[in-house]
Amino acid sequence: MLTFIGLGLYDERSITVEGREALRSADRVFAEFYTSRLVGADAEALEAAHGIEVEVRGREGVERDPEAILAAAETGDAAFLTAGDTMISTTHTDLRLRAESRGIETRVIHGVTAQSAASSLTGLQNYRFGKAVTLPFPYAHGGDGVPASVVETIEANRGRGLHTLVYLDIKVGTGPSGLDPDHEEYMTADRAAALLADGWDDALAVVVARAGSPDPVVVADRLAALADRTFGDPLHTLVIPGDLHHIEAEALVGLADAPESLVEE
Amino acid sequence: MLTFIGLGLYDERSITVEGREALRSADRVFAEFYTSRLVGADAEALEAAHGIEVEVRGREGVERDPEAILAAAETGDAAFLTAGDTMISTTHTDLRLRAESRGIETRVIHGVTAQSAASSLTGLQNYRFGKAVTLPFPYAHGGDGVPASVVETIEANRGRGLHTLVYLDIKVGTGPSGLDPDHEEYMTADRAAALLADGWDDALAVVVARAGSPDPVVVADRLAALADRTFGDPLHTLVIPGDLHHIEAEALVGLADAPESLVEE
Repeated sequence: MLTFIGLGLYDERSITVEGREALRSADRVFAEFYTSRLVGADAEALEAAHGIEVEVRGREGVERDPEAILAAAETGDAAFLTAGDTMISTTHTDLRLRAESRGIETRVIHGVTAQSAASSLTGLQNYRFGKAVTLPFPYAHGGDGVPASVVETIEANRGRGLHTLVYLDIKVGTGPSGLDPDHEEYMTADRAAALLADGWDDALAVVVARAGSPDPVVVADRLAALADRTFGDPLHTLVIPGDLHHIEAEALVGLADAPESLVEE
Repeated sequence: MLTFIGLGLYDERSITVEGREALRSADRVFAEFYTSRLVGADAEALEAAHGIEVEVRGREGVERDPEAILAAAETGDAAFLTAGDTMISTTHTDLRLRAESRGIETRVIHGVTAQSAASSLTGLQNYRFGKAVTLPFPYAHGGDGVPASVVETIEANRGRGLHTLVYLDIKVGTGPSGLDPDHEEYMTADRAAALLADGWDDALAVVVARAGSPDPVVVADRLAALADRTFGDPLHTLVIPGDLHHIEAEALVGLADAPESLVEE
C-alpha cells in the first residue's frame, strides 16, 4: 500500500488527524520537499512530533529512481509526504500511476493548499478565481521580467472579471547554474510585485505571506506600493483581483488594509 | 477571540491537528452545516470525538442573528466550524468582518477543500483549472436545465483549454417551496451529468464522489454515459476537463477508468 499524504501548509500540526494516524502506522515514510516545503517544520521536527523516521528524497530520488518507494509499498505500508496537498505536482501523479501499474494499492489523504488559504485569508471568493499561474525567477525562464504566458493568463482572467492566484517560484536543489543541492530560494512577494508592476503599475494586488501559519500577513495595495515593502519569512503568494463584489471589497479593506480608493466599484 | 476552523471534507478526523487543538481549547463552539456538511460525521459525532459541545446554527442564526456568536467571542474563545475550508462562503467573511469591526480578534485555521481534492484525486493539475461553477437544482434557479451562466463558464474555460470544477447543489433547510428545516437534498453526479449532457452529450467528464472519505469514487466517461450510472452516497462533484496533458490523460485512464478513445490528444 502506498499512501500519499498532504502535510498542509505550515508545520507538523498542519496535517489532518487522519493523515497523522496513517503516518504513524506506516512501515516506512518517504517525503519530498523540492516542489514545496513546510516553513515551520523540517524533517527532524516531523520525526520528533510523530515518532517516525522520514526518508527525504530529492527530485532524482522520486522521478528517476522511485524503486525504493515502490518496493517498500509492495511489501508493506509506505507513506509519501508532500507539503500542501498531495498529487499537486505531476511527479506525484506519475508515482501513483507507477504504483498502480505494479498492482500496488494507493490512497490519498488530502492536505490544505495555498490556493484555498489564499482565498479564505483574503476574503476573495473561491469560485471567482480563474486559472492560477506561477511567476518564475527571471533566470529560470531565461528572459527578463514576466513571461508572456503569465501576462496572458492574468489578462484573460481580468477580462472575465476573475481573480488570479500567482504562485511564487521556489528553487530548492537547483539554482541559476543548474543542480545545486544547497540552493534554496523563495521568490518574495515584493520582488514579484516589482516584476508585475512593470505592466500594471497601479493595479491592486494582495500579498499573502505565511498562509497557514499562526501569523499570516495579508496586505492589499497597488503593485508599485507592494514592491516597496517587505513581508518577512516565506512562503509568499500574490493575488491579482478581478472585479470585486461588495463583500470582497469590504474584506480587502477590513482584513488587508486596502486603500478604499482602490476597491471602489 | 473568534477562530474560524475548517473541518475538512469527511468526518471528525478530517480536521487538522492544529484545528483540533483550537477546537478543544475553545470556550464555546458554534457550527453551521447549511453551506456544506460532513457526510461521515454529524454534530454528535464531533462532540463525542473531540469532547466538546457544538451549537449548530441555521442560516438565520448566522446571517441575521450572529449576536450569540459575537458575544461569546467578545468575552472568551469562540470557535466557528464549517465543513471544507472556512471562509468559503461570503457568510463567513461577513461574520469575520463584523467581529473585527467590534474589536474582536479573529483567526483562521484552514481545512481541506473539495477543489483541491477533486484535482488530486483525478490527477488533473490544479493550475489548469479555470473558474469553478455550481450547478443548481432546476427549481432553485427557476428555469429548466442548466443556467446560461454555467454554460458560459464551462465554454469559456474550454476555450482556454482549462478544466472546470462543477460543484453540485446542496439544499439544506430550504427546499422547492422555500424555508423547510427538514429539507436535505444533494444533487447527484448522474443527475448533473444528465443535465449537462443536454448540451455536451459526448463530452468527457469526471465524477468525484465522496472526496476525502476512505472510499472516494472517481469515474471518467462521456456525460451521457455517466448519466446512466449511480455513484452512491453524497457529496459528489463533477469535472469537465479541458485540454489534457499527457500525464493527465494517463491519470484519467489509470485512476478513473476513462475509455482510452476519449482522452486521445
